[in-house]
Amino acid sequence: MAAESKPSIGFVGLGAMGFGMATNLVNQGYHVKGFDVFPASVQRFQQAGGAAAASLVDSATDCPFYIVMVASADQVQEALFGEHGAVKALPQGATLLLCSTVPSSYAESVAKELQNVGRGDVFFVDAPVSGGTTRAANGTLTIMAGAEPEALEKARWLLQEMSDPKSLYIPGGIGSGSNMKMVHQVLAAIQILLSSEAMGFAARLGLDAQTTYEAINKSDTWCWMFENRVPRLIEEDFVPGASAITIILKDAGIITSMARLTDFPTPLSAAAEAMYLVALGQGMGRLDDASMVRLYYPEPVKTVKVEEPQAEKLELVFKLLRGVLICAAAEAVGFARFLGLDLHQFHELAANAAGGSVQFRDRGAEMIELLTGQKVAGTQTLPELDIGAVRKDLAEAISAARKANCPTPLASQALSLLATGERKGAKRGDEYYGLLV
Amino acid sequence: MAAESKPSIGFVGLGAMGFGMATNLVNQGYHVKGFDVFPASVQRFQQAGGAAAASLVDSATDCPFYIVMVASADQVQEALFGEHGAVKALPQGATLLLCSTVPSSYAESVAKELQNVGRGDVFFVDAPVSGGTTRAANGTLTIMAGAEPEALEKARWLLQEMSDPKSLYIPGGIGSGSNMKMVHQVLAAIQILLSSEAMGFAARLGLDAQTTYEAINKSDTWCWMFENRVPRLIEEDFVPGASAITIILKDAGIITSMARLTDFPTPLSAAAEAMYLVALGQGMGRLDDASMVRLYYPEPVKTVKVEEPQAEKLELVFKLLRGVLICAAAEAVGFARFLGLDLHQFHELAANAAGGSVQFRDRGAEMIELLTGQKVAGTQTLPELDIGAVRKDLAEAISAARKANCPTPLASQALSLLATGERKGAKRGDEYYGLLV
Repeated sequence: MAAESKPSIGFVGLGAMGFGMATNLVNQGYHVKGFDVFPASVQRFQQAGGAAAASLVDSATDCPFYIVMVASADQVQEALFGEHGAVKALPQGATLLLCSTVPSSYAESVAKELQNVGRGDVFFVDAPVSGGTTRAANGTLTIMAGAEPEALEKARWLLQEMSDPKSLYIPGGIGSGSNMKMVHQVLAAIQILLSSEAMGFAARLGLDAQTTYEAINKSDTWCWMFENRVPRLIEEDFVPGASAITIILKDAGIITSMARLTDFPTPLSAAAEAMYLVALGQGMGRLDDASMVRLYYPEPVKTVKVEEPQAEKLELVFKLLRGVLICAAAEAVGFARFLGLDLHQFHELAANAAGGSVQFRDRGAEMIELLTGQKVAGTQTLPELDIGAVRKDLAEAISAARKANCPTPLASQALSLLATGERKGAKRGDEYYGLLV
Repeated sequence: MAAESKPSIGFVGLGAMGFGMATNLVNQGYHVKGFDVFPASVQRFQQAGGAAAASLVDSATDCPFYIVMVASADQVQEALFGEHGAVKALPQGATLLLCSTVPSSYAESVAKELQNVGRGDVFFVDAPVSGGTTRAANGTLTIMAGAEPEALEKARWLLQEMSDPKSLYIPGGIGSGSNMKMVHQVLAAIQILLSSEAMGFAARLGLDAQTTYEAINKSDTWCWMFENRVPRLIEEDFVPGASAITIILKDAGIITSMARLTDFPTPLSAAAEAMYLVALGQGMGRLDDASMVRLYYPEPVKTVKVEEPQAEKLELVFKLLRGVLICAAAEAVGFARFLGLDLHQFHELAANAAGGSVQFRDRGAEMIELLTGQKVAGTQTLPELDIGAVRKDLAEAISAARKANCPTPLASQALSLLATGERKGAKRGDEYYGLLV
């Protein structure tokens, strides 16, 4: 868009993600008026070239585009519809992007409330994002945008400025973007905790942390969260948290509350949420989520007395990871299908985002093929998975963890899922998938 | 048995349970030679009228009856078959009672090893006990005895002296007693943690602890463990533990290792075990298991600032308990059936032991009737359970817990189980039972 014609953008929520997103737009040459309840955040934004808004009303005034990136549905409600909220100050026909992660039912309620307060003229887009602070600042987020076609058309250029290679347009209107983000967070919530479960297990086995980290990153048990979190886990880089436990806890809460609302079973997400809540109760809420390793191993993993030989023990960690990653893929794909989302789009999105893993890319694609009858684009046919062997391997890893007094809340629930499949007589990968998803 | 004809009894393992069992036999007029690795325990036993054995060999010498009540299979192995073990000193044709809680596979291995070391003459009985220290000291334990008929015949009088009203003879030979004890411990392991989950939830809701305790004991959500543990939980009577976390952790480990060995799913037992292991990692292993409440609520529950009104919140605690207790019954009955145990005998045993609950007595009996086609003796036909309502109630309780930042690892797994039933189209109690068990 040519500089002279660039419209003003209002922005509320200048936290870790929001600050990156807003300054990226500033760097693209837009006039961005930013607001946050913390004056220090507004000041920091001003120093980065943004315009400081004095209030929510000020942040919306004369801005035909408005972005909300606060932390929770409660905060969105206050920012938009509170006594001094932004909605009443939006220009006629403004476009409103809700980028916060919220339950889809909440996104739907925003659309209704806009009508109810006489602002049916606002073009509203439900547009949660994924990708972390670095991609926020680079304008290379993944955005899951759902809305009426006219609203999407209005918002397209702005979504493009913040995302790369392109935003995803989620069919189904308002709420679909939030649902897509939520099923992606099924993978994220499980795999963040799994990174600690695997590294705590490795420590209890007497494995060297750095060696384990590198070996897993090169293996079929790689996942994005593990690669991203474990350096902080090893260095005990927990304060201030790059991504606090309270953040993933909030997302886990969206998953399980949606599961309760729709009577869908999410045993792994629920197990992860329970662990995050235990950590919260121990006063760890503001620590980086990599500190979850504390509930598995009480000392820094760097202090482990390494015991040779390592190869066989490392194999046990792979076995634990593989079993959980496959069940995490099943829980996410199963929930996505249950909510009526486009599974092929979900695969494209999640395989390349923070929820990505080798197992999701490969075995998740097989699950989606089984459910839709259509091969996932860009995937190859792999040797058939012997899921009975995955189950036995997982059981072996859990036995070793138990001997080493290591809790395995995720691995144990994954094993129960696989054992349920075994009981029902499944023998092959696709039969199991049918039971799991 | 007349005093002059009373045979000598050897005894190893004078811990909390063993001390009570051995002194009870002394009080019944038997000559009991006791041994323990802790000399102080032997001395205490001597002060209570027992005979001090100088060694394992001494404890077995001239004793035609020998009782093992050490803490784990490893300890049993050392006590019986170690270099200075008791077996080689047992008189010809002695009767050996293994009362420790061990995996059934281990009990079977003891029978084999007796043959292998040339002591096929020993009459071996797999006889784990339940009932706690008071009933141990009173000779009113529940004993689950499995063995060849001749061995059971030999041991009968001694089992009677330790139990009341009668020992249970478990069909199926060696290992069956241990399996029966294990499925009982499914209820115990879940319901010990559930006591903390419910009281932690109550505290976070602002309920008065004592009022909650009394209300639950009078309700259909009563269970033996709750009534027994919660006074210690309220008074913070954790050191020394009347029943340490390590004890129930050991039993939970037997359950889940047997589940892994047989590919049976035990999601609630596994969730409980993970929490006990987290507590162990926090240095809580030797505390009373009522201290598990610390993982749910960080302060003493007596310090809760009580918020009126209480009735509606109390109802939420009932809802949480009811859902978990029904699923605990299903997990225990399902595993018992899977292992080929007599379900009617299991019901008789567990309904009246530490695993007992109103829900197990009533709805557990319905599950057994569904599986066996036979009504459980002494039970009445109840109004049909609306298990969809149980599920909705449980979801409501979990939502309230989540808002109060209370973890619900057991309730959440129970809900996933019930949601799986819902997904498969179950509408009535017996349809759900069919899916659960």
